[in-house]
Amino acid sequence: MAGGGGELVSNKQVIFRDYVNGFPKDSDMFLTSGNINLKVPEDSDGILVKNLYLSCDPYMRLLMNHIPSQSVFTAYTPGSPVTGLGVGKVLDSKHPDFQEGDLVWGTIGWEEFSLITTPQGFFKIQHTDVPLSYYTGILGMPGLTAYAGFYEVCAPKKGEYVFISAASGAVGQLVGQFAKLMGCYVVGSAGTPQKVDLLKNKFGFDEAFNYKEEPDLNAALKRYFSQGIDIYFENVRGKMLDAVLLNMRIHGRIAVCGMISQYNLGEPEGVCNLMSIIYKRVNIQGFVAAEYYHQFPKFLEVVLPYIRQGKITYVEDIVEGLENAPAALIGLFRGQNVGKQVVVVARD
Amino acid sequence: MAGGGGELVSNKQVIFRDYVNGFPKDSDMFLTSGNINLKVPEDSDGILVKNLYLSCDPYMRLLMNHIPSQSVFTAYTPGSPVTGLGVGKVLDSKHPDFQEGDLVWGTIGWEEFSLITTPQGFFKIQHTDVPLSYYTGILGMPGLTAYAGFYEVCAPKKGEYVFISAASGAVGQLVGQFAKLMGCYVVGSAGTPQKVDLLKNKFGFDEAFNYKEEPDLNAALKRYFSQGIDIYFENVRGKMLDAVLLNMRIHGRIAVCGMISQYNLGEPEGVCNLMSIIYKRVNIQGFVAAEYYHQFPKFLEVVLPYIRQGKITYVEDIVEGLENAPAALIGLFRGQNVGKQVVVVARD
Repeated sequence: MAGGGGELVSNKQVIFRDYVNGFPKDSDMFLTSGNINLKVPEDSDGILVKNLYLSCDPYMRLLMNHIPSQSVFTAYTPGSPVTGLGVGKVLDSKHPDFQEGDLVWGTIGWEEFSLITTPQGFFKIQHTDVPLSYYTGILGMPGLTAYAGFYEVCAPKKGEYVFISAASGAVGQLVGQFAKLMGCYVVGSAGTPQKVDLLKNKFGFDEAFNYKEEPDLNAALKRYFSQGIDIYFENVRGKMLDAVLLNMRIHGRIAVCGMISQYNLGEPEGVCNLMSIIYKRVNIQGFVAAEYYHQFPKFLEVVLPYIRQGKITYVEDIVEGLENAPAALIGLFRGQNVGKQVVVVARD
Repeated sequence: MAGGGGELVSNKQVIFRDYVNGFPKDSDMFLTSGNINLKVPEDSDGILVKNLYLSCDPYMRLLMNHIPSQSVFTAYTPGSPVTGLGVGKVLDSKHPDFQEGDLVWGTIGWEEFSLITTPQGFFKIQHTDVPLSYYTGILGMPGLTAYAGFYEVCAPKKGEYVFISAASGAVGQLVGQFAKLMGCYVVGSAGTPQKVDLLKNKFGFDEAFNYKEEPDLNAALKRYFSQGIDIYFENVRGKMLDAVLLNMRIHGRIAVCGMISQYNLGEPEGVCNLMSIIYKRVNIQGFVAAEYYHQFPKFLEVVLPYIRQGKITYVEDIVEGLENAPAALIGLFRGQNVGKQVVVVARD
């Protein structure tokens, strides 16, 4: 790479091999090593970032498809690095908003160093008395997803009945804790006894169950929600959404930001019980965190004190080393992560 | 029937024979004749109504099921008359809000005369310069469904792209005309060339198509909505909803008050393209007109002038005679009606 006169160093990268059908495999990505100049080129107003923490998020599976179903996202380019949200340290900047030493989060490559040519979307990290990795989770996109999804989309009221699927995940564990802080009755579902235990004993859910041990999800929901469900925070879809629809209360609300059970299916499963939408006058609202980024300062003002006071806790599943990132990402779709899946590239 | 001292007259009735599976048939109802005293009993504060116009509405199919899917409705009782909305004339009243000669609409039996023991839910008809049958349609529950569903639930803006299924029906034809009055681009689908012609040439839709002639609904919608759909007024579900989901614009809204294609199915069809809800941040809102009855006076203030000025037109499919009511109701589920299906029992 020309210009800049900086140090040329080796740059390990995780490369996206080719478009994926069905469940992604280790071999859909491979590790390689290039070189990178640690100075931003003269003709760029970008930043050069040393990557510290990578975030593994379900939406990344969608970018592995040849044609993203709706072309809202841009697919990964075969032969180029996987990209995702992450935390990094600015080594060099030609952009007025950033300077050397700044900690930032935004969309980076799965590599040791990334040249970011359009850093406008990056957030500067101001608070470092909490783990830096939190900016991939509770203080990043998943945190804002939980915050905006619960407080804005679900419009919760004290005492309401709240159900959360994938409840121990990066988003679900927060939604449940927000709901408890609001005085709601909160039940979560997850896929292992360990996760169910976390929900009840670490996150303070009122009840939790292992959906894999329930032959009849409708019956399971009726057991926990004899009065029905006011708010469903949907992270999975599949059979769970159909069962939930049968158990919604009048004027119930369903916030939809993820449907992880569908991401690896060629043809999505059908949802059958939509008549309940009329019977119960249910509202279903799809949303993405990106539309709430303007609320980020307000969000931090709410969540940082909760973290510092120990009112909210956050469980991360931290994997060491860029070379282990593909397996970590793939594990997400098998439910192998316990809590927010993070990959450490470097600690500073 | 004892008491009251009134005239005992014969009362033809349409009786619901037994719970229905699949499409209802003529033989699921039968005609009989009883006697009725035309005076309200002394110990009642009810009203005695001579029935004039009966309304055939899709929701009535749901009341023919043994267990209404969600027990929000009360099923018909085998051996008792079919009930539905209708217009009648008060022959006798022991209720302070009603007096002899009043015209009313509300839930009546499919019979010549009905004793209404709890007339609290009845509306008094004040405006008779329009056809009385309109109170089963444009000025009754379907009209309020269209009005509240479009203006309140869909929150339309001038210039938006609006799609309506079952568009020539009791509700759809009004939604389309409301949308045109608001300055929207409006396309409707229907199931015969005659209905498509009505949509374009009588109701002033910008475009209309016969969904039965479209092998690929997604392609049909793309033809009419190159920019996508802002508002979908859902009356049918089935494959149409899946195709619509693929064509929604960002922040699109789907108002759901009916899913007629599903009412006669043992198992509802699956809806597969719900991922679009996230991609396009779509809102789906179920609603029923009953929740908007408090807006009825405001609704009349808007719609009556439109009718009188000829700005809104309304097509009815009027069948003569109580004995033809079962066939009229059944025809609704085959799309045999053209416009609002009404049955005349008597004209005054």
